[in-house]
Amino acid sequence: MPRSQRRSPPRPKLVSERVCIVGCGAIGGLYAARLGQLPDVEVWAYDPARDHVEAINRDGLRLTGHTELTARVRAVTDATQIPHCALGIVATKGTVTEAAIVATAPIFGDGAVCSVQNGIGNEEVIAEHAPRVMRGVTLQSGRVEAPGVIHLDAPGPTWIGPFEPRPAHWEEVSRLAELLNHGGMETRALRDARGAQWTKLLFNASTNPLCALTGLTHGQLCEYPPTRRLVGELIREGRSVADALGVVLDGDPDILVDEAARANFHHRPSMLQDALARRHTEIDTLNGGIVASARHPRVATPLHAAITDLINGLEHGWSRTPSSG
Amino acid sequence: MPRSQRRSPPRPKLVSERVCIVGCGAIGGLYAARLGQLPDVEVWAYDPARDHVEAINRDGLRLTGHTELTARVRAVTDATQIPHCALGIVATKGTVTEAAIVATAPIFGDGAVCSVQNGIGNEEVIAEHAPRVMRGVTLQSGRVEAPGVIHLDAPGPTWIGPFEPRPAHWEEVSRLAELLNHGGMETRALRDARGAQWTKLLFNASTNPLCALTGLTHGQLCEYPPTRRLVGELIREGRSVADALGVVLDGDPDILVDEAARANFHHRPSMLQDALARRHTEIDTLNGGIVASARHPRVATPLHAAITDLINGLEHGWSRTPSSG
Repeated sequence: MPRSQRRSPPRPKLVSERVCIVGCGAIGGLYAARLGQLPDVEVWAYDPARDHVEAINRDGLRLTGHTELTARVRAVTDATQIPHCALGIVATKGTVTEAAIVATAPIFGDGAVCSVQNGIGNEEVIAEHAPRVMRGVTLQSGRVEAPGVIHLDAPGPTWIGPFEPRPAHWEEVSRLAELLNHGGMETRALRDARGAQWTKLLFNASTNPLCALTGLTHGQLCEYPPTRRLVGELIREGRSVADALGVVLDGDPDILVDEAARANFHHRPSMLQDALARRHTEIDTLNGGIVASARHPRVATPLHAAITDLINGLEHGWSRTPSSG
Repeated sequence: MPRSQRRSPPRPKLVSERVCIVGCGAIGGLYAARLGQLPDVEVWAYDPARDHVEAINRDGLRLTGHTELTARVRAVTDATQIPHCALGIVATKGTVTEAAIVATAPIFGDGAVCSVQNGIGNEEVIAEHAPRVMRGVTLQSGRVEAPGVIHLDAPGPTWIGPFEPRPAHWEEVSRLAELLNHGGMETRALRDARGAQWTKLLFNASTNPLCALTGLTHGQLCEYPPTRRLVGELIREGRSVADALGVVLDGDPDILVDEAARANFHHRPSMLQDALARRHTEIDTLNGGIVASARHPRVATPLHAAITDLINGLEHGWSRTPSSG
């Protein structure tokens, strides 16, 4: 369903190798840096942080930690400065997906946009504004170490696939995977990426908010029997939603959380970091996303609803009392 | 089942009007001060806080706030100094019930001991050591303002009744109620105090730990729809346990929590105060008590179990990281 043959090239040839990274923070920065390494790809990054954008344009985008490199990326705080891009990657926090895609949608014309965000429900928001969409999920983790500098904490694979209600063409999915693999980022193009996405969703939704509520690291949460019990119950409840939706998980979240506890005991999940900094969390696309997804198949999700309410309550408290630290 | 006719007087005449308050803190102090007003009652208080005990013995036990009075109370940190008492009131936190009753049980000989503690399950612990037991529940709230000084935040009724598996004689229940009423503390003797106890239990278990997890005051918790929803779900689940046990609530917890939100919007429940001070909470006799009570009638309590796990996790975190404040 191409909308305007004047603005977009005929498929399958993608004449422009311009890619726009929407949100060039801890995760988006990893994609921008990898793609910026490729001689035939022009990478644009849209990010609201002015000092970060200025540092990227002045010194290049630096990757440190597990991998060290500096990439040429054009960064802007004003999306209207970005020329047409055939491919986009949205890597903002789920809390600002709507605003970010509204600002950048004109860039993509007849292109395809891939979410690599946490949780579930971001693709639905993107699909209201972009012509074609991909689901994506990644196991990488990183953090913005300084303006222009992204620290890669842990590498990990990315899975991408068409978003079913408004799918990207398979050529677009496989082309984006090809570019990312060329850039040194392990990426698999899948006909159905829901299993990968839900596996990570259940992992995150069953652990991150519990860390945020208790202050425990991922390892502490999983070694302490009462909290590990609750992690298991949340996985079980979430799995019943995936089953009802016909999603086949590509891994066992119970095994994955214990593996992660051994590999990265002291890891503070992003939602714990958000709680400590009193930042708006991604609860609505994690546990809240599971609750919303369970409505149509009418699966009961009392535990994920309770966790969603508690994190919402925590955030409500921040808005009512000034931070003490 | 009198144990030693040498140490205890024959019933029903209670020759000694000695009463021992076990735990003379925020709640126990209210009872000690009221009973200490009565000319014919000798009040002993057992409490581990040496400065508090010394202040009570030196200056009397002072009540401030809603009611102002000073009472003569003999306070000790060593329970072996207390003579035989026919009546006892246990008002420690649920976390130290076992240690407190082990230390004081010999005082009561053939007497009766009443719990006025939060939650459920304390009477069972007391009954392992004391000859006869009463269930009690109170709506008063107070705090230790300084050594020897208890601030009465809000007065409220007390309900007492026989503890079914090891019941106090009805004469003991009514005598204790009489003394407390004489001392100016509204008290009702009930043949079955379970309805009063479970009503307060459901009130506390459905609000206090949510305040502790989110930092919200009681009023904030109840005005914010997501958290108020969860309060309602916890009440509903707890009510199903009471029903299965044949306990008839003496009030509607849903109405009571909203009334309390209007009357005392800024109230920080004791469990929130415990969380802020990183003190061991009473979760095991609140939500944990509901979960334990639900085992025999085999009622599912996934939400109260989840809340218990989260508070246990919060406490586990304090034991793993030093306090920052």
